[in-house]
Amino acid sequence: MKRREFLTAGISIAATSIVASNTFSSVSFAATSERPMQILALVFDDYETLDLHGPIEMLGHMKNVEIKLVGAKSIIRSYQGPRVVTDLSLDSVTPCDLLIIPGGLGTRKLIEDQVLMRWLREQQKVSDKVFSICTGSALLAKAGVLDGVNATTNKMAYNWVTSLSNKVNWQPSARWVDDGKYLTSSGVSAGIDAALFYVEQLRGKSEAKRIQALTEYHWNDDATNDPYAVET
Amino acid sequence: MKRREFLTAGISIAATSIVASNTFSSVSFAATSERPMQILALVFDDYETLDLHGPIEMLGHMKNVEIKLVGAKSIIRSYQGPRVVTDLSLDSVTPCDLLIIPGGLGTRKLIEDQVLMRWLREQQKVSDKVFSICTGSALLAKAGVLDGVNATTNKMAYNWVTSLSNKVNWQPSARWVDDGKYLTSSGVSAGIDAALFYVEQLRGKSEAKRIQALTEYHWNDDATNDPYAVET
Repeated sequence: MKRREFLTAGISIAATSIVASNTFSSVSFAATSERPMQILALVFDDYETLDLHGPIEMLGHMKNVEIKLVGAKSIIRSYQGPRVVTDLSLDSVTPCDLLIIPGGLGTRKLIEDQVLMRWLREQQKVSDKVFSICTGSALLAKAGVLDGVNATTNKMAYNWVTSLSNKVNWQPSARWVDDGKYLTSSGVSAGIDAALFYVEQLRGKSEAKRIQALTEYHWNDDATNDPYAVET
Repeated sequence: MKRREFLTAGISIAATSIVASNTFSSVSFAATSERPMQILALVFDDYETLDLHGPIEMLGHMKNVEIKLVGAKSIIRSYQGPRVVTDLSLDSVTPCDLLIIPGGLGTRKLIEDQVLMRWLREQQKVSDKVFSICTGSALLAKAGVLDGVNATTNKMAYNWVTSLSNKVNWQPSARWVDDGKYLTSSGVSAGIDAALFYVEQLRGKSEAKRIQALTEYHWNDDATNDPYAVET
């Protein structure tokens, strides 16, 4: 590859992250109207493609937004095959407006990764809002981030995810659950609906509707309308 | 980045593509039940995120499928910001079962790119089926690939795309149009519906429904149901 190209990217990356050697930084994050909104998305091998790129599609159409990927390696492979390039590493935490945690088959192994668990606990402290899609909530639950929080997850993997923590108030019927700082969505494409809800919450219904029309999307804008709800 | 990591990828890439110096190869492609189905997706700077990753999500859940990205550079940036790594270059054509052409703001400049236009004309010859999403049909129309074909495109960009060729039978009201070798979808998320239609066409309705449930998706499975149809 063009090595220079990647190094150039590396420079801009270093400038935006807080690098810590042994301990993570946890600088509080004051939003200003001047700077672009900062969205950070975790990626890992075998992440589910649409969990990540569905919300990125919708959120990326808001004005004045910067979306960056963070992961343990320079190049991350999705479950479907194609690879993405990370902008930030797990050696640091980065204050942001929104932290996106996708799901996918990769989460089955990742729940045992203590480096990631520690990063999640520290990164979420410097994130104004945390948004998980599908089994991304398994990572947050295992890290203890969702203790006492109302949350949901992929209904096909409901039994596995909910078995990881009995301290989360798991919701068996919800397209998404918004509980203050934590927004958790149901499986895969539910993340697109939840992302548009977040746009509405942040910038108003008309902005969410503008992006829905722009993307010719059929938005399920009712969090209680869950066609894949599970019986418990 | 880990240079070795990329070079290793490079080796597997070389093995799968047909490299030609001055002229493109156009080896006919005989599908066998042994080899994985080959899906090739074009990427370019400022491609629309969901145009590409929506269909990849659905198609990638079929059994025995390989999805590769092809582009003019090693790393390609989406309109929303995140970057993908290409597996193949435009120096060659690669026989495949399905060629995916996403749209996005990048197409506005790309219609003037004669290298790409030539690649499209040659690559489509060795592709069993060609599937464009959103303004991806602008590239195919400009290359002359859709002459005499019934096709559709993003309804928000309908006037621009249709102005590029009067030899295409443009359809102002269609979620997607399947005309033999050429499958063209309406804007952005319509590509997900068309991808599931392709799964149904190839592997049957039950397989399409399995993937729809797996991804908790609301599938608009009626090509004539176009909420964003334009008046002409």
